[in-house]
Amino acid sequence: MNDQEKAEKIVNGMLEKDEFSRWLGIEVIEVKPGYSKLKMKIRKDMLNGFDICHGGITFSLADSALAFASNGYGNIAVALETSIAFSNKVIEGDTLTATAEEQSRNRKTAVYNVIVSNQNNEKVGIFRGTVYITKKEF
Amino acid sequence: MNDQEKAEKIVNGMLEKDEFSRWLGIEVIEVKPGYSKLKMKIRKDMLNGFDICHGGITFSLADSALAFASNGYGNIAVALETSIAFSNKVIEGDTLTATAEEQSRNRKTAVYNVIVSNQNNEKVGIFRGTVYITKKEF
Amino acid sequence: MNDQEKAEKIVNGMLEKDEFSRWLGIEVIEVKPGYSKLKMKIRKDMLNGFDICHGGITFSLADSALAFASNGYGNIAVALETSIAFSNKVIEGDTLTATAEEQSRNRKTAVYNVIVSNQNNEKVGIFRGTVYITKKEF
Amino acid sequence: MNDQEKAEKIVNGMLEKDEFSRWLGIEVIEVKPGYSKLKMKIRKDMLNGFDICHGGITFSLADSALAFASNGYGNIAVALETSIAFSNKVIEGDTLTATAEEQSRNRKTAVYNVIVSNQNNEKVGIFRGTVYITKKEF
Repeated sequence: MNDQEKAEKIVNGMLEKDEFSRWLGIEVIEVKPGYSKLKMKIRKDMLNGFDICHGGITFSLADSALAFASNGYGNIAVALETSIAFSNKVIEGDTLTATAEEQSRNRKTAVYNVIVSNQNNEKVGIFRGTVYITKKEF
Repeated sequence: MNDQEKAEKIVNGMLEKDEFSRWLGIEVIEVKPGYSKLKMKIRKDMLNGFDICHGGITFSLADSALAFASNGYGNIAVALETSIAFSNKVIEGDTLTATAEEQSRNRKTAVYNVIVSNQNNEKVGIFRGTVYITKKEF
Repeated sequence: MNDQEKAEKIVNGMLEKDEFSRWLGIEVIEVKPGYSKLKMKIRKDMLNGFDICHGGITFSLADSALAFASNGYGNIAVALETSIAFSNKVIEGDTLTATAEEQSRNRKTAVYNVIVSNQNNEKVGIFRGTVYITKKEF
Repeated sequence: MNDQEKAEKIVNGMLEKDEFSRWLGIEVIEVKPGYSKLKMKIRKDMLNGFDICHGGITFSLADSALAFASNGYGNIAVALETSIAFSNKVIEGDTLTATAEEQSRNRKTAVYNVIVSNQNNEKVGIFRGTVYITKKEF
């Protein structure tokens, strides 16, 4: 099993047991060590009181992308700090894609940028996350 | 109707139409202009693949607290930037409380700190959000 | 030497060798394990092209407060992630006070909120920092 | 004067009056509307008590890059929220390059990612900033 296959196996295992990501309807488009690309569709039960997508939904997609990109090497990584700028509104029926790209990785911590875009290629969320890399292996 | 009653009326109206906050089971404990205190219980369908609460759930509670604290004055406010540090893990059955407190408010923008704690008074999420205050009134 | 004296000794030693904090004119008002309060005055050479204080100056004061609050226990701690909301402008002659308060501390990481205020008690910077606690002792 | 020339004229004017950026020794490598690339060298008076570069210095370079990228269109833009992950340490003699790239720009706000790298192309700071675009023109 090479690095790529290992990353895919880990992420598939994570998603299978991840009840909230499955409630969100997250689909894995591509995964590599240090990288992930996910997709989901915005449903009515994801909206807030202004009839637009709750910020927590966009964040959650990006946070899952962070988890899938940072865990693919084989060691369990946990999020320490995450942040998101909301740059365009998201509405029911939108299809969001989140792409997580590794910015740096040391022995103990790693940093990822995640861009969340809609079906028109407009960026709706600009996310960053720092994870702590544990010694625990999958 | 005084400021306090106005804030309560706005937040109750927001929550009533907020499908995702209602899926989360969010309960409003207290609300004032510039302040909100919310509560929710962590269910099995809120967990991630490591059997702990998905970061997006804790974030979503804090993000709702931000919305309820910043909209109570009467003008619609939208989140621009939010960030959260995850300081302790959250598990099924935990009861989380989020308290949003205004740090500053100008004509156009306002900043809030939100602390999310569990039933043992341990902080599990340290959140901050900056909102843009629109001219649109409730 | 009790915990308080130890924290003071560490911070005094840090500040003595910290050339940039000394260029800033930072003065330690109070320090305890997990807490620090610093003061500085804004000079002309700290302004940007709009004749207001450069954001990096306000950030630097808060970042020093983070370092002094998080290192006082005896283990060297390094900043992983920091963020600041600029809530009011700062001008020449202002006296800024930064107060760092610990939000959480585990074996490996700790989180601090730092509030930067001016001489009129207006908040000018709302800062948060997460540090990694090394095994290296002072 | 085309957009490119206008952006250069604005940034040159900003830098000329920006006393702190000049103390830092910041040099403009390239500037376009929504983009900037800056360079500076780390001196002894920029170090902290651990003999490494003070986090505020790396932040300040990125914050200047944010200002130069976001102001080049002609309207004065001010930073609301900024954050930085410190991914590798910086020492005396290092040459840092900051590259600011626009992620989104609406009528009122814009978001930029800034990467700060050293002379070995290692990322030392991963920065994001959200600005508010005023109606005031240069």
